[in-house]
Amino acid sequence: MKLIWSPTSPFARKVRVAAYELGLHERLTLEALNVQPGKLNPEYATSVNPLRKIPALILDDGEAIVDSLIICDYLDALAGGDRIIPAANPERARVLTAHSIANGVIDTLVQLRYETWLRPEELRWQVWSDDLWDRVVHGLSWLEQRAGAPRDRFDLAAITTACMLGYLDLRFAGAAWREKFPALAAFEAAVRDRPSLGNTAPPQG
Amino acid sequence: MKLIWSPTSPFARKVRVAAYELGLHERLTLEALNVQPGKLNPEYATSVNPLRKIPALILDDGEAIVDSLIICDYLDALAGGDRIIPAANPERARVLTAHSIANGVIDTLVQLRYETWLRPEELRWQVWSDDLWDRVVHGLSWLEQRAGAPRDRFDLAAITTACMLGYLDLRFAGAAWREKFPALAAFEAAVRDRPSLGNTAPPQG
Repeated sequence: MKLIWSPTSPFARKVRVAAYELGLHERLTLEALNVQPGKLNPEYATSVNPLRKIPALILDDGEAIVDSLIICDYLDALAGGDRIIPAANPERARVLTAHSIANGVIDTLVQLRYETWLRPEELRWQVWSDDLWDRVVHGLSWLEQRAGAPRDRFDLAAITTACMLGYLDLRFAGAAWREKFPALAAFEAAVRDRPSLGNTAPPQG
Repeated sequence: MKLIWSPTSPFARKVRVAAYELGLHERLTLEALNVQPGKLNPEYATSVNPLRKIPALILDDGEAIVDSLIICDYLDALAGGDRIIPAANPERARVLTAHSIANGVIDTLVQLRYETWLRPEELRWQVWSDDLWDRVVHGLSWLEQRAGAPRDRFDLAAITTACMLGYLDLRFAGAAWREKFPALAAFEAAVRDRPSLGNTAPPQG
């Protein structure tokens, strides 16, 4: 299987961490692709993902799977199922909802970066970046309240939260989130040395 | 169960259509919420969804499920499973990938609407709206190629594609998508009269 990725994409990292946790990482070959607004990547848009996002998983028969959640669902099934995504409710809905929140915070941070870094300075809209940052803070508070709860496994919500925090450190280094969210800081310190996270850390700087 | 929704949200409509198809619509009570950039809805952000998106499903015990895909997954399981989301691969990954594309087109259309309608005119960035529209066109082409394929059920990909096309008609009435994508036009004409779609159509105008 081939994973279309980039070294700094938190969504691609999530899939790689999942593959490590499931013991499937050696079955993934990586192919790098640079995606950003204004770069139309016509071949990728036509043959893999019309939305031009990464990651995408290309199976050996050529079929492409998107997006990162669906790839993780596929890998979980390939590893036997009920591993990083609980099979039964209510635990399933709880983990998938926490995944939605952590993943949505990543999405919001990416939008914030487009607004405050990529978009020409004279076209930025303060109302929008304030709104996005408010969502990030509420998202972190939501995750903070649940970060101290006992976990019996390193599930998809935990994987995605760890990748989200790594992305905060990579792109929003001045955010000082550890001081405001001590339970998330403790969580990050506790999981940082897992091989799945250590082996997929983005290049710094 | 309580569904937080709005009459024009294509994501909320997707959940309502799914509930109809699964025979669960009478178990949903609806509670309207207006969400838009710049409107901080602090109570909703704190107690339900920190990302302030709709829909959210509030269970009878108070637990909130987000986002629309996870709610549909929950409802499918509640109806016995393997109904609108296939339980087994490769069909499962195929339907969920097609859902990702149709859902991603909706997401892109919403972003396009923020950029070309909500954002103050002097702050709009043509590179970004052109980029978003290019994703929409590629997404529609991707779905067009698969719209003629025989279907043995009205699954989550078909539901989401129908809601996406309804949103195009609602908010991008000048797009003339039926001329450019005849297989999608035939699909829409064939499914339009299903009670699930007829009973959830957004108010026009």
